[in-house]
Amino acid sequence: MTSIDLNADLGEGFGRWRLTDDEQLLSVVTSANVACGFHAGDAATMRRVCAQAAERGVAIGAQVSYRDLAGFGRRAMDVPATELAAEVAYQIGALEVFARAAGARVAYVKPHGALYNRVVHDEEQAHAVVDGVRLADPALPVLGLPGSRLLELAAKAGLPTVAEAFADRAYTEEGTLVPRGRDGAVVTDAAAVVERSVGLARSGTVTAHSGVRIEVRARSLCLHGDTPGAVDLARQVRRRLEESGVRVEAFV
Amino acid sequence: MTSIDLNADLGEGFGRWRLTDDEQLLSVVTSANVACGFHAGDAATMRRVCAQAAERGVAIGAQVSYRDLAGFGRRAMDVPATELAAEVAYQIGALEVFARAAGARVAYVKPHGALYNRVVHDEEQAHAVVDGVRLADPALPVLGLPGSRLLELAAKAGLPTVAEAFADRAYTEEGTLVPRGRDGAVVTDAAAVVERSVGLARSGTVTAHSGVRIEVRARSLCLHGDTPGAVDLARQVRRRLEESGVRVEAFV
Amino acid sequence: MTSIDLNADLGEGFGRWRLTDDEQLLSVVTSANVACGFHAGDAATMRRVCAQAAERGVAIGAQVSYRDLAGFGRRAMDVPATELAAEVAYQIGALEVFARAAGARVAYVKPHGALYNRVVHDEEQAHAVVDGVRLADPALPVLGLPGSRLLELAAKAGLPTVAEAFADRAYTEEGTLVPRGRDGAVVTDAAAVVERSVGLARSGTVTAHSGVRIEVRARSLCLHGDTPGAVDLARQVRRRLEESGVRVEAFV
Amino acid sequence: MTSIDLNADLGEGFGRWRLTDDEQLLSVVTSANVACGFHAGDAATMRRVCAQAAERGVAIGAQVSYRDLAGFGRRAMDVPATELAAEVAYQIGALEVFARAAGARVAYVKPHGALYNRVVHDEEQAHAVVDGVRLADPALPVLGLPGSRLLELAAKAGLPTVAEAFADRAYTEEGTLVPRGRDGAVVTDAAAVVERSVGLARSGTVTAHSGVRIEVRARSLCLHGDTPGAVDLARQVRRRLEESGVRVEAFV
Repeated sequence: MTSIDLNADLGEGFGRWRLTDDEQLLSVVTSANVACGFHAGDAATMRRVCAQAAERGVAIGAQVSYRDLAGFGRRAMDVPATELAAEVAYQIGALEVFARAAGARVAYVKPHGALYNRVVHDEEQAHAVVDGVRLADPALPVLGLPGSRLLELAAKAGLPTVAEAFADRAYTEEGTLVPRGRDGAVVTDAAAVVERSVGLARSGTVTAHSGVRIEVRARSLCLHGDTPGAVDLARQVRRRLEESGVRVEAFV
Repeated sequence: MTSIDLNADLGEGFGRWRLTDDEQLLSVVTSANVACGFHAGDAATMRRVCAQAAERGVAIGAQVSYRDLAGFGRRAMDVPATELAAEVAYQIGALEVFARAAGARVAYVKPHGALYNRVVHDEEQAHAVVDGVRLADPALPVLGLPGSRLLELAAKAGLPTVAEAFADRAYTEEGTLVPRGRDGAVVTDAAAVVERSVGLARSGTVTAHSGVRIEVRARSLCLHGDTPGAVDLARQVRRRLEESGVRVEAFV
Repeated sequence: MTSIDLNADLGEGFGRWRLTDDEQLLSVVTSANVACGFHAGDAATMRRVCAQAAERGVAIGAQVSYRDLAGFGRRAMDVPATELAAEVAYQIGALEVFARAAGARVAYVKPHGALYNRVVHDEEQAHAVVDGVRLADPALPVLGLPGSRLLELAAKAGLPTVAEAFADRAYTEEGTLVPRGRDGAVVTDAAAVVERSVGLARSGTVTAHSGVRIEVRARSLCLHGDTPGAVDLARQVRRRLEESGVRVEAFV
Repeated sequence: MTSIDLNADLGEGFGRWRLTDDEQLLSVVTSANVACGFHAGDAATMRRVCAQAAERGVAIGAQVSYRDLAGFGRRAMDVPATELAAEVAYQIGALEVFARAAGARVAYVKPHGALYNRVVHDEEQAHAVVDGVRLADPALPVLGLPGSRLLELAAKAGLPTVAEAFADRAYTEEGTLVPRGRDGAVVTDAAAVVERSVGLARSGTVTAHSGVRIEVRARSLCLHGDTPGAVDLARQVRRRLEESGVRVEAFV
């Protein structure tokens, strides 16, 4: 039986501010990318989200970021490798306390925002993220874009790697994402997103921007939780996956 | 044979800024209170200090603080208990990664600055710190002022507690510190500091401000590292302790 | 003809996070307390809010705070007077740029959150806030609680002072606010809030918690903008004030 | 008579941390680039440095930076233009308060660190900095590298521009700086630095890395204040300039 993981960003508030509907998302996803304080995520929120995730059996991942609250981690930064590796490890360690206190553990690491995009191609920063993960735990899986430098270097360093796909993003024929900003880069039709999710999970394929059917192998689908209607769409995706005979479960 | 621990604050720089001479201090102390990022201590510094401490066999402690870089953790803050407990745990977890990566572990927790002073009397915040420590590890020793609410509540919660004394601070006849700002609150004469250290370590006594000899039971002496001549004085203290037949060793 | 000012906190988002519905609030209030970056309020938001306020003729006030993004400025801090005065001036100056660029100016200063509450009684911090305001502009009005140390010291220092009242807070017979947390401290019934607003504006009186009618002289009413239904209630207050023959206008 | 300005970075501490010897530097330079809180520079330090600069007649400049305390503003960041412009204006406004309180004014703007380097070539960010300066004051001079996009766009926008040179940096034959990291990029010999300063000031020329004499027109020389011996070297430069008949004075 085919199985797929559903991951989403959670705990992306800070102090007085909220962004994600964590409780609702935790009723849908199987893996929670928990913000660790650098782009969002105060300590009390991290604790609460870990407790709720553990209670529901949702896997807890460290969503590591550049240190950039003002920019929500969305501004690429030229952080020297030594600093970046240490900052990645710092965030994982901070989250680990709350995961452990909830009877769980940090089950994987996923970079956030600008760092996620940067380590697709940037050798030095991808290396630094891998070093940071290994500092924290040399057996910790890394979740990211298939074909990215990050996953390549992680695999080379002996870390388990998990590829993810985006049902709401257009793909090129080469299997890369159509850059945001280009026409049609984001799939906004809910029915299409649901259908693409099923295709990605069942056959590992999706229709590229050009209309050609391409292969995209991914053990996890990334859902977005910070837009209106996001939780409803996530629910639909999950329901249709299950109706299609796909087992929805964490990859760890 | 009598033994005593020597502790000092380390890693209290941030990014471009340095404060403590970490390498020199690590050649003298047996316990390093490592700043965890809230009042000082960037991730790369934490990593470096942990590696150096582990190499020398110096015990690594989490020096937890209010979140206050601008005030260096020296401004008392009314942080609600839930937030404070989570922030304490967050800092311990972050440090734990670097201690573990160095082949060591976080061996104790010591509050810094205004938080240290506050939990001497403040029931709610002392409770929150204890909760934060237990979140991270229910067997983690707490280092603090004898008679403080912190040590009382920590002991009640089943945490090991370690009392420390200050050879360079004047004591009242009741065994409490003469508040900074009062005449003679700080002992500035190096020879006197050395002599008081030996007295505290060997007989658990010190001459109070009034001239009366009082009992101050402490397994650790706190040395200061951020003033000119501090490292030299620390060295003298250690030498004289050893010459007096006191074994200088970590309490853990 | 009687006139009253309506003030509310605006621009209290930060980066990716929003809190207040600034555009809606600007259609109701006559004075906007704009967050200046220390508890909320990034630079781009400050610029936008100032432009919108100026366009509508709403007075721009600097809502100064402790430096505490994580706590939204709601945690009292023992900030030394020298630092606090400078931090207050810093925030006013930063806002001034955007007010001026919009063809307006910073027309008053109002402390936020824990600082607001602290300077009701704390002589030293009230003094520091006054010093900070005077550093920025020795003729800048201060908006605050009648009877507070802040307004007393501001007046003594030659600064114009403006007293505000809260239609949604219960008052003691002595004219002070019933502390939050006490039963009935907050008036939640919308009709009652509207009625109390009219009473405060027209006759300078309000029914105290005990049922006795008391005098509360205020040139401004503080409306809250960060709760569901807040903007609607604010609109009702304004409409009823105008229907009652009260001119709603900024105090500056 | 030839005249030259000497500028240096000042006030680059933060809270408990110090970096620059502000008092000594103020006895040498004619223009002080004051840190405004984003890479360094707490409010109390800004106030103090402005007061000291004004007392000595040293011109006060806003040293604007990316928001990056942890990286000291040395990590290039992809800050969107709207945010960057607002952040530049914010910093200028904050400094303006302290300059004005000291009886002076912000006399110019100079980007710091990674932002300085970025706006040499980056059209969008250079534009954003110019927008930010104009928001604050449409007649405020901009100090920077001759030939940089920043100075070109500033001039086009009607802002006065001031070019600076570096006596301790090697130049290519094209008049650009040899990138740090390359052999010989930094001139470390004190006598050479002094001699190059005189050449730059008197004839607007300097010997390039290749040995060829090239023209570098600059109204200001940038001195460094954060290295051991920096203040002494600065003093020597100033003395030799004056002995050579160059008038050392601010460009404003």
